[in-house]
Amino acid sequence: MYPSIFGHKTEQEFMTITILGAGRSSASLIRYLGEKGQHKGWKLRVGDMDEATAARRVVGLGNAESFAFNVNDQMALEREVKGADLVISMLPAVMHISVIKECIKYKKNIITPSYVTPEIKALDAAAREAGIVVLNEMGVDPGIDHMSAMEILDKIKSRGGRVTRFESFTGGLIAPESDDNPWHYKFTWNPRNVVMAGAGGTAMFIQEGQLKYIPYHRLFQRIREIDIEGSGRFEGYANRDSLKYREVYGLDDIPTLYRGTLRKAGFCKAWDVFVQLGMTDESYTINYDGTMTYRDFVNSYLSYDPEKSVEQKLRDYLDLDDQTMARLEWIGLFEKETIGLTNATPAAILQKKLEGKWVFNDSDKDMIVMWHLFRYELSNETREIQASMVYVGRDNVLSAMSDTVGLPVALAAEMILSGELNVTGVLLPITPNIYAPILERLKEHGIYLGEKEYRV
Amino acid sequence: MYPSIFGHKTEQEFMTITILGAGRSSASLIRYLGEKGQHKGWKLRVGDMDEATAARRVVGLGNAESFAFNVNDQMALEREVKGADLVISMLPAVMHISVIKECIKYKKNIITPSYVTPEIKALDAAAREAGIVVLNEMGVDPGIDHMSAMEILDKIKSRGGRVTRFESFTGGLIAPESDDNPWHYKFTWNPRNVVMAGAGGTAMFIQEGQLKYIPYHRLFQRIREIDIEGSGRFEGYANRDSLKYREVYGLDDIPTLYRGTLRKAGFCKAWDVFVQLGMTDESYTINYDGTMTYRDFVNSYLSYDPEKSVEQKLRDYLDLDDQTMARLEWIGLFEKETIGLTNATPAAILQKKLEGKWVFNDSDKDMIVMWHLFRYELSNETREIQASMVYVGRDNVLSAMSDTVGLPVALAAEMILSGELNVTGVLLPITPNIYAPILERLKEHGIYLGEKEYRV
Repeated sequence: MYPSIFGHKTEQEFMTITILGAGRSSASLIRYLGEKGQHKGWKLRVGDMDEATAARRVVGLGNAESFAFNVNDQMALEREVKGADLVISMLPAVMHISVIKECIKYKKNIITPSYVTPEIKALDAAAREAGIVVLNEMGVDPGIDHMSAMEILDKIKSRGGRVTRFESFTGGLIAPESDDNPWHYKFTWNPRNVVMAGAGGTAMFIQEGQLKYIPYHRLFQRIREIDIEGSGRFEGYANRDSLKYREVYGLDDIPTLYRGTLRKAGFCKAWDVFVQLGMTDESYTINYDGTMTYRDFVNSYLSYDPEKSVEQKLRDYLDLDDQTMARLEWIGLFEKETIGLTNATPAAILQKKLEGKWVFNDSDKDMIVMWHLFRYELSNETREIQASMVYVGRDNVLSAMSDTVGLPVALAAEMILSGELNVTGVLLPITPNIYAPILERLKEHGIYLGEKEYRV
Repeated sequence: MYPSIFGHKTEQEFMTITILGAGRSSASLIRYLGEKGQHKGWKLRVGDMDEATAARRVVGLGNAESFAFNVNDQMALEREVKGADLVISMLPAVMHISVIKECIKYKKNIITPSYVTPEIKALDAAAREAGIVVLNEMGVDPGIDHMSAMEILDKIKSRGGRVTRFESFTGGLIAPESDDNPWHYKFTWNPRNVVMAGAGGTAMFIQEGQLKYIPYHRLFQRIREIDIEGSGRFEGYANRDSLKYREVYGLDDIPTLYRGTLRKAGFCKAWDVFVQLGMTDESYTINYDGTMTYRDFVNSYLSYDPEKSVEQKLRDYLDLDDQTMARLEWIGLFEKETIGLTNATPAAILQKKLEGKWVFNDSDKDMIVMWHLFRYELSNETREIQASMVYVGRDNVLSAMSDTVGLPVALAAEMILSGELNVTGVLLPITPNIYAPILERLKEHGIYLGEKEYRV
């Protein structure tokens, strides 16, 4: 059906895993399945818009081949799905739906690391009828966060405890050994997603039985401070919709449920400057004559004042402290450097500046930090469990992001191919048949949460 | 073609003016054209989604008839346009485009009081080819603001002056004799438009040669204070896009151009509370059990604190003064009154509360306030002209809004029907052949701007 590098064996002897999307997050996944597959008789087909990226990922893997792949090429999509035993979609989240539809049509199991959308959820009956599983949210956040939380929640419930609070935070950060800037941050994943984080709408959660809403322009001001033993102080801002996780986690009546994103202390206050100014906006382009500098860019969000410097105006406008000003200075926000973009959105201008500074160098390592808090009532006592993980990447390619997104996906793929996991429908990894074996095996790779429990 | 009440004359003896949309802003327009038409031989057809509204508008006008009209009924639209000598669209702005397309098809002149959109502008060549005029922005704002500004700008230019600053503000407010609440505001026009004012995006203008952008969440904080002799202190917030008016007004190189909306002093600070909390959001609905009160609604935007009252939390969060708190108390924002809406957006909940308070009573009068500032250089002198208008409505129906929107439209209609104005294409009232006669005739109705000029 397609040219194969496996001429010495017949197709039937292999199981074919087709991986669509070979970006940063796919590196560990492909490495794991490629190496494991040499003993298991798996063949990998790795496709990406950029064929060179796909090719780089399969270097040294004798059982893997790369190809150029465009999800909008319907014939190519059908051919790939039809030829696969299992499909893994690592494409941008909006693209999963068309792959999933083909998987239902050709009765092929599929795994994604992304949030299940209402559109995907609506395919549950069709997936069951086709006898396949559409396993979503199988990465780190969402993914490991669900699995590790459900393990503890099920443990509390099995003891007879009543959960009254659940908070969960995850962050993709720079490892301490590579942390060399005042933001304690580098772009270890998609820069645009970082710039636009939270911009999609109002954050929603529940606290002590009260619904709480935080609009985007207040998101980075209403933060939660979190100390993780041995790793210092972090701060969390609320994720878009925590409310729907009441149903997902089986905690319909819980008084407090809050999910968020972690940054190192001080980050949010400085990031909020960009939000307050309006620099994360994507809805218009700035028309200028090509000579506009970053300093002009900042000034365009400040009132006219012939007496004060741009720095002073900004400091006064947003009542900024020295540390925040130092972070902005370090970014080069006040430089008289020409932007060099034409008709760009504010967000694109900001991203360009940040990309020049928050560089994830070849010698850098990233880390994934996860923290859960569970409060529960048991035998007239109030108890808390804190669970946390600080996982540092192996190197710049087999990064913490790549490991924690890719390994759970890979382990789930292994379970499906071996028949160990035999389920159908549109699923999340929130049941013990999925999370228990995967969490156990992730531990062997150093990916696990440490727990401590105490009375409140 | 349609049933007519004018059986005693043949169709040919009449000119038919078809007015689509009979809301608040159409009252004065219909009255004027109806009364004038009795001598001029005009017949009016007035259509509205709500036939009763249309019927109410034609009461006492022997030459006018009302009908139920739905712009999405393509056959009805074609029939009405085909039977008209002139079409006036007073429909919601988004609906004009389909009416305009029919007018081009059937070669009928059309007037609207709304902003010309890029889509409408693109029909310029087609309108010229059809030999018709599509006359837009013929109301008050946009409309009288353009006409009065262009008259002064043309005067300055004819003297050889160089304009360096143009600021223009308009507001639809409550008349002093009906101003009986601490906001000095009532809903004298569409409440939803008031609630969503500015929410569409970032405001843009130019000041001393520097592009300036104000995001929505800062719009009501960055205000311009304006004193109008005899009427007290007002404040203005920036309109969406002032930049495009550089071209419209022929002021391409002007260092300062700013257009905005006027409110009475103190309004913006209190309105900003709603914006800061996130209550003007239309992007999600609040799920609650039907017992949620306005107090709960406010609390859902404030951090949890078991010690403080909702009032105290709000005051601390936004650093509010007594006057602003008094305005919020007056609105009833802290009342333990059930909202009584299910799955409503925050903006709809807020609007419901405001509609119960900012009632434009039958005995109330409104007013339109307009203020322009022109600065220019002439013979090495810097001069300023301030022009302002405070126009109070005749009554609750023939309101200032209805008069200032409807009379310029009516006067333009008269000029087109009589042949006095014989132009084609998609136009704004920015040339003397349009603005000069209309401004002169508006003066007879008490609608004009007083001017004063001085050296700076």
